[in-house]
Amino acid sequence: MATAKSRLSIDYANVMASAVGQENGLTDAELNDAATQATAHIDRIWNEYDAGDQRWVALPDNRQLVADIESFASSEGRAYEDLILVGIGGSSLGAIATIQALAHPFRNLQPHSNRGGPRLFVLDNPDPEKVAATLETVDLSKTLVNVVTKSGQTAETMANFLVVKDALEQTVGQDQARKQIVATTDPKDGLLRQLADQEGYRDFPVPPGVDGRMTVLSAVGMLPAALCGVDIGGLLDGAAAMREASRNRDARQNPGALFASIAWLAATKRDKSMLVMMPYADSLFGIADWFRQLWAESLGKRLSTADDEVFAGQTPIKALGAIDQHSQIQLYTEGPNDKLICLTGVGTYRSGVEIAATPDSIDELGYLRNAELGQLLDRERMATAWALTNANRPNLSISIPAIDAGTVGEFFFMHEFQTVVGGGLFDVNPFGQPGVEAGKNATYALMGREGYETLRDELTGSGGESRYTLS
Amino acid sequence: MATAKSRLSIDYANVMASAVGQENGLTDAELNDAATQATAHIDRIWNEYDAGDQRWVALPDNRQLVADIESFASSEGRAYEDLILVGIGGSSLGAIATIQALAHPFRNLQPHSNRGGPRLFVLDNPDPEKVAATLETVDLSKTLVNVVTKSGQTAETMANFLVVKDALEQTVGQDQARKQIVATTDPKDGLLRQLADQEGYRDFPVPPGVDGRMTVLSAVGMLPAALCGVDIGGLLDGAAAMREASRNRDARQNPGALFASIAWLAATKRDKSMLVMMPYADSLFGIADWFRQLWAESLGKRLSTADDEVFAGQTPIKALGAIDQHSQIQLYTEGPNDKLICLTGVGTYRSGVEIAATPDSIDELGYLRNAELGQLLDRERMATAWALTNANRPNLSISIPAIDAGTVGEFFFMHEFQTVVGGGLFDVNPFGQPGVEAGKNATYALMGREGYETLRDELTGSGGESRYTLS
Repeated sequence: MATAKSRLSIDYANVMASAVGQENGLTDAELNDAATQATAHIDRIWNEYDAGDQRWVALPDNRQLVADIESFASSEGRAYEDLILVGIGGSSLGAIATIQALAHPFRNLQPHSNRGGPRLFVLDNPDPEKVAATLETVDLSKTLVNVVTKSGQTAETMANFLVVKDALEQTVGQDQARKQIVATTDPKDGLLRQLADQEGYRDFPVPPGVDGRMTVLSAVGMLPAALCGVDIGGLLDGAAAMREASRNRDARQNPGALFASIAWLAATKRDKSMLVMMPYADSLFGIADWFRQLWAESLGKRLSTADDEVFAGQTPIKALGAIDQHSQIQLYTEGPNDKLICLTGVGTYRSGVEIAATPDSIDELGYLRNAELGQLLDRERMATAWALTNANRPNLSISIPAIDAGTVGEFFFMHEFQTVVGGGLFDVNPFGQPGVEAGKNATYALMGREGYETLRDELTGSGGESRYTLS
Repeated sequence: MATAKSRLSIDYANVMASAVGQENGLTDAELNDAATQATAHIDRIWNEYDAGDQRWVALPDNRQLVADIESFASSEGRAYEDLILVGIGGSSLGAIATIQALAHPFRNLQPHSNRGGPRLFVLDNPDPEKVAATLETVDLSKTLVNVVTKSGQTAETMANFLVVKDALEQTVGQDQARKQIVATTDPKDGLLRQLADQEGYRDFPVPPGVDGRMTVLSAVGMLPAALCGVDIGGLLDGAAAMREASRNRDARQNPGALFASIAWLAATKRDKSMLVMMPYADSLFGIADWFRQLWAESLGKRLSTADDEVFAGQTPIKALGAIDQHSQIQLYTEGPNDKLICLTGVGTYRSGVEIAATPDSIDELGYLRNAELGQLLDRERMATAWALTNANRPNLSISIPAIDAGTVGEFFFMHEFQTVVGGGLFDVNPFGQPGVEAGKNATYALMGREGYETLRDELTGSGGESRYTLS
């Protein structure tokens, strides 16, 4: 099958010194130098991929998985009234982003016939209020449960799953409950694997050798998306198109590598410690949230590849245009000049809404007469880019012609490629998350898990000084 | 009426040098010095209030407004099937935060009898996809529309309102439409005032002399909240309790002033350019988002009070515990040490959910047996505070005994007081948002509004260099 061409474009004129001045903007020489370094990482990624590593790159090829998911979804999955997705972090953010981008904004309020699949409820947080409310709201006898964790060790996910499993068993009995549970987990190892085998759950694989935050294009992201009616084949088509564009060895012609080069220079040469992702579309906000994990966990590292202490990283921030013009733009234009800002624009929105009537009596509103909301929103984006540039704040704009499965797939792959190239430029290992172990272990200790007794003693003896409490 | 005592407490041991080292933590001497400066601002705020300024401080006293809102809500408002709130920034964030904190998490999915009021749809963004989906989903013949803008100039709000108004008129006719619209706007001036008078809309006041981002305790926040069944009297009670605590001239005993002092020292003496608000409760996430506007727009200022160019401010970031442990904590603990992190804990959640059964066959999950989800979530918070402290990342913890109207009211008032004291410490005017004018004017220009022709010519002639476009 011929790979389609990428439809996403990047305008980065406003990150250059010619637009925002040399104190905040990049010179061509700097960008060319960064691009040269990025080229080495592009080559390395493709070489490692050819050698069997960088397995996330292969995900767009898994057409058999698409067929398996589609088969389950169409034969049975979409007939359920409700779907509870139990998973946290990389085990839910990708599905949420995909469904938010591509399904009806009020999907859960539509009748089953309109939404083409179950209502979706995500249990990510072990927040008892949300869990109880979910169990009150769904119809457990018609509910499919998709539990997602590679290791089965994740405390939040297993806690929520055990609660849901118990409620399901109470409602439909143990045998039927087993049929309403689908596990997405490691094909061979782990606690959920063990449980799924014992109980006979249906299961889909978490792809081996891929970090959780890069699994959106696997069953982790695609099973819930397909159940909610998303065209997951189209998602992979878009990802494949962007993968093709990511082969370009000229980093300035390679979207992910270009973005990585700009962000790295901004962070390390111009003190832009934050990267703001600000789409001008409610439906794209979830992608900004998904990216937030990707960029933070991948680049936020204490050690360099040579094990020097570097405390690397750039803080990703999600914002939403035009809403955050009424919340954050005051700070972005007048506060510390410490951000690189990426605006995303959409060529044609999926709905056209015209302002048909403005009151004749109020001249000042005449400029809205016969305007389209999409036109207003897009001009707000242009106005914001201009205002940021005027205030010497570096910003770039990503444009897509439309929000569809293809362009959403492009975003996912571009940001993943960007992140792995970014790891190279920041000189850190973009995989793994060693910094979260301490907190996980402390939770185990505080929950009384066996083997964590010493840490528990340390923790319970470590109360802060009470003179620093105000109550 | 006797004012209740504040129930919120702050533990700031982990922002001190004794916990996270002197490079990142504060000394007692520094904090005492900042507190002394804060005292001057506490005194100034109360003096200005007594002299008739700082009108936001008076909002908790407006019991007549509570009675008026309650009267409208109980006699008619809550009987509607749907409520569309049209407003952006300060005209919607407070209502969203309040309702998210105090209503059922899946309120819109409940039958009318359970939710005690209309379903809520917020049209903040002029996103045509969301607007069209909202109009598809609501029953316009049973829909109340609350349009909120002080000036009636806000392009997004007026655009969305004109669309909704037109749809409503098409459905129920002009006369009936007028009865289903409530305007919250300036009592005397502005375009929406003018329209409301012409059309005979019912109306509630945006309080004069109060910035939009501080109107949550006025009709702006309280009318939608009351329509959704929130105890708005309790909200004001809590705010009044916190106001009482805010009278303390010792800034180390004054919650808002203490928080402001810590944040200001962290930002200006320890390079903590970001303030992360991370509640451990889904329902409190909206308050973090509301705070985000408050802190960003109030302190993010180019000019000092003496009109020197200072580019002040600290970037507020919202995060959610425990979810963001699986997204941001890697960066927060191992990345650049550039954040002050505020965790919020809840004593007793409104639901108790026990993990009744763990599989006997899997020993490793035994630690979850008979645990409460709320206990797990709270221990995750403690574990995160410990892990952050271990990595020398300054953090503080706010605790409330429960999430109710009173504690939510306390949060609002505390953060407002904190922000105005913060303005004093950062030496900027915390009111107004001069930095957003440029973008607003550019939008008007691009939309062809009369009087903006010169700017329009400048904008349309300012295209970036095409060699910086990748497509």
